Amino acid sequence: MVDILHRIGVLASVDDVYKSLDTIDGLAAWWTEDTHATDGVIKFRFGAAGGFDMKVLDSIPGELVRWEVVDGPAEWIGTHVRFDLTQEDDYAIVMFRHEGWQEQVPFMYHCSTKWATFLMSLKKLVETGTGDPAPNDVQVSNWH
Amino acid sequence: MVDILHRIGVLASVDDVYKSLDTIDGLAAWWTEDTHATDGVIKFRFGAAGGFDMKVLDSIPGELVRWEVVDGPAEWIGTHVRFDLTQEDDYAIVMFRHEGWQEQVPFMYHCSTKWATFLMSLKKLVETGTGDPAPNDVQVSNWH
Repeated sequence: MVDILHRIGVLASVDDVYKSLDTIDGLAAWWTEDTHATDGVIKFRFGAAGGFDMKVLDSIPGELVRWEVVDGPAEWIGTHVRFDLTQEDDYAIVMFRHEGWQEQVPFMYHCSTKWATFLMSLKKLVETGTGDPAPNDVQVSNWH
Repeated sequence: MVDILHRIGVLASVDDVYKSLDTIDGLAAWWTEDTHATDGVIKFRFGAAGGFDMKVLDSIPGELVRWEVVDGPAEWIGTHVRFDLTQEDDYAIVMFRHEGWQEQVPFMYHCSTKWATFLMSLKKLVETGTGDPAPNDVQVSNWH
């Protein structure tokens, strides 16, 4: 099993960051505008590229959000995505893990870079009020 | 052992990307302006934060650049950094690995995100002529 790891610091409180991880409006403002919840599952869609369905495993205000991928690309199904939050002075620190990949496939390399740019979108959203969610996300390659 | 992985696509030829990985001027234009070579070792410096010394293990035009970290933070020493290049239509694809970390320490999370932003700086440099090297690099957190 292999994992994607990232760390960002947001000039805000952990409660403000948590709101962007625990509400549909918050998630839609930094990851993808096409975000909806049905039957306890959050559906993130990226146009023709498809998307991911997440079951919320943990949601602890100001501390932790953890999802299980229940549908999407084969490489993602069964993996977990987690955001651990801690306050360090003026910064809300987000320790991000997308854990449980089976292999270091090229798609994992791609997703690692995309997660970094989406986390920077989360930081920008909370700090300035405007993120860069899909379909207007940062393009990193020919895979978008 | 655990690894940081990233994938970017640069709208350019692999030869153009290679020049930014194999020359001091190229490296200084996307990673850190304070880059120098002495006795076969490339020294990358980031002001008060210190830096990294890299021994070049492989340098194959248009294909591969691979370094061994010979000095720097304890967590980096002995790890390898590699850039594998391939052409896919109009894109030079960079498969990046910083491999051989002993543990998933918080510094590894940080470096993963920083590598992503520096690789986006490399992409921007080759596509537009201007990157975002230190000391004017993208700040991702309180650790810079």
